[in-house]
Amino acid sequence: MSLRIIATGGTFDKQYDPLTGQLIFGASVIPSALQRARMTLAYEFEPLMALDSLDMLEPQRQQIRDACERSQQTQIVIVHGTDTMRETAEVLGRAELGKSIVLTGAMVPYRIDGSDALFNLGFACAAATLCAPGVYIAMNGQVFPWHAVHKNRAAGVFESD
Amino acid sequence: MSLRIIATGGTFDKQYDPLTGQLIFGASVIPSALQRARMTLAYEFEPLMALDSLDMLEPQRQQIRDACERSQQTQIVIVHGTDTMRETAEVLGRAELGKSIVLTGAMVPYRIDGSDALFNLGFACAAATLCAPGVYIAMNGQVFPWHAVHKNRAAGVFESD
Amino acid sequence: MSLRIIATGGTFDKQYDPLTGQLIFGASVIPSALQRARMTLAYEFEPLMALDSLDMLEPQRQQIRDACERSQQTQIVIVHGTDTMRETAEVLGRAELGKSIVLTGAMVPYRIDGSDALFNLGFACAAATLCAPGVYIAMNGQVFPWHAVHKNRAAGVFESD
Amino acid sequence: MSLRIIATGGTFDKQYDPLTGQLIFGASVIPSALQRARMTLAYEFEPLMALDSLDMLEPQRQQIRDACERSQQTQIVIVHGTDTMRETAEVLGRAELGKSIVLTGAMVPYRIDGSDALFNLGFACAAATLCAPGVYIAMNGQVFPWHAVHKNRAAGVFESD
Repeated sequence: MSLRIIATGGTFDKQYDPLTGQLIFGASVIPSALQRARMTLAYEFEPLMALDSLDMLEPQRQQIRDACERSQQTQIVIVHGTDTMRETAEVLGRAELGKSIVLTGAMVPYRIDGSDALFNLGFACAAATLCAPGVYIAMNGQVFPWHAVHKNRAAGVFESD
Repeated sequence: MSLRIIATGGTFDKQYDPLTGQLIFGASVIPSALQRARMTLAYEFEPLMALDSLDMLEPQRQQIRDACERSQQTQIVIVHGTDTMRETAEVLGRAELGKSIVLTGAMVPYRIDGSDALFNLGFACAAATLCAPGVYIAMNGQVFPWHAVHKNRAAGVFESD
Repeated sequence: MSLRIIATGGTFDKQYDPLTGQLIFGASVIPSALQRARMTLAYEFEPLMALDSLDMLEPQRQQIRDACERSQQTQIVIVHGTDTMRETAEVLGRAELGKSIVLTGAMVPYRIDGSDALFNLGFACAAATLCAPGVYIAMNGQVFPWHAVHKNRAAGVFESD
Repeated sequence: MSLRIIATGGTFDKQYDPLTGQLIFGASVIPSALQRARMTLAYEFEPLMALDSLDMLEPQRQQIRDACERSQQTQIVIVHGTDTMRETAEVLGRAELGKSIVLTGAMVPYRIDGSDALFNLGFACAAATLCAPGVYIAMNGQVFPWHAVHKNRAAGVFESD
């Protein structure tokens, strides 16, 4: 058994650039998060892209779909921005790839005090391992099927439709 | 659906005492970890005891068993020291309580740099939600059934028997 | 002997807003930083304003000058954005207030991994205590007189003129 | 102008050992703390020893004295355990080395949440730069001459005699 973990960017992976004062993407924090987690489960890490999910369009969603399709692992975690996580989940859900695909992200970047990123990553790894084939969003300590979830932007949480 | 989270102490919850220079137990860090996780799943937190798992004996294990038995929630996470996690899991496993009980802990305390605690807590919450009734140890990114796992103390990781 | 510590905003005090994904100002982090520092020196904390130093104009600089003038403490630390720290220092320097005034800030916000904020705050508190009356910038482990320092923005460090 | 920074161990540098659950000494955290501080002042780091200050005896104090004597820098920061910081300061004070020597330490290790270590390091670096030749203890946001300070162990703070 093994896991594929795909980075696509999002708040989870945002890092502070001291020169510009902006939050930007650099090398993904995910490998160091997984090392810290002391994972002994075999996994492959794939840094596919590094985008704000508001900048993610159909071609990028197809790229993520393709990465899932060609994945040798049937259990996949995708770290993704929360704003359009639902849209990407829908593309993957409709593709019916026969794999257990779990999208997660963070409301506060991994590198910032009080981040939910490490909790969410752990939660998503377990969900990808344990869920039946299908596409899920794992946020706020819950596993939502892709077709019945939305982000409540005012509250900053995911909710069942 | 809701979750019960029981604190019993262990490395996860150790905190530094500036006056003695020792790692001790104070108020559990788990409520603040769960708040940080932005859990919207309903849960009840039960600070049952605060022990090094090396100091845990049969009466304490029965106390944990009783807490699981009287729990209204059928999905239970127990935060426990790693050294005798297997022994407590066995007591719970043999009790056949018909609930999904997941023990987790940490190799590095939550309050110390590079801790695995938050990842493990997230992982265990998902496992308790998703696993069939039974007793499991969730560490190192894996879910182990209670009867087929041991801690490799030299390596500091859990392994299948 | 006692110290006045004045917050004016700047990178030091930037905090992440989960709802907008922006770095914003909330309640200053300085009181909690000083508690963590276990200061026993008496001090008064004054949250004067919360501005990016690029947004700071002459009226704000006069406000800072006034706060220094009316300060009962003759040793003053000002936490300020780095981009126009030199300009504010000049206003204070020309005012010849006869107090030991030390401006400091941070290249990485206090709440972000790897921040220099706590080091700089400690450095500035010592400098305000020990320097002769005058106006200084304390950054990068150095104390610069106000009239002979500039920020090298490409390198992100302060340098002597 | 340049600074010598000497590590001798103490709480500042204690690190958690996941295998034994003990706080131990490994490679000093001070170089990474100084890098994080974005120091541009030239400095030399000397990892002299790694001891609990309760284990420090006369030979070790002479070793620290010798390191200060042979230091090419006349401004010296010594990171030291707090319990016998006063005793080492006395050995250095009586040696009358004609240098500005500042001892500091921490009540909470650098690697543990809420540590005062980085603040103290910044404070001590400024004090070593700015104080007249002599031997000082810099803790709790104050600079104490070596002959007029003691640690109040019940309160965990340094006080003037």
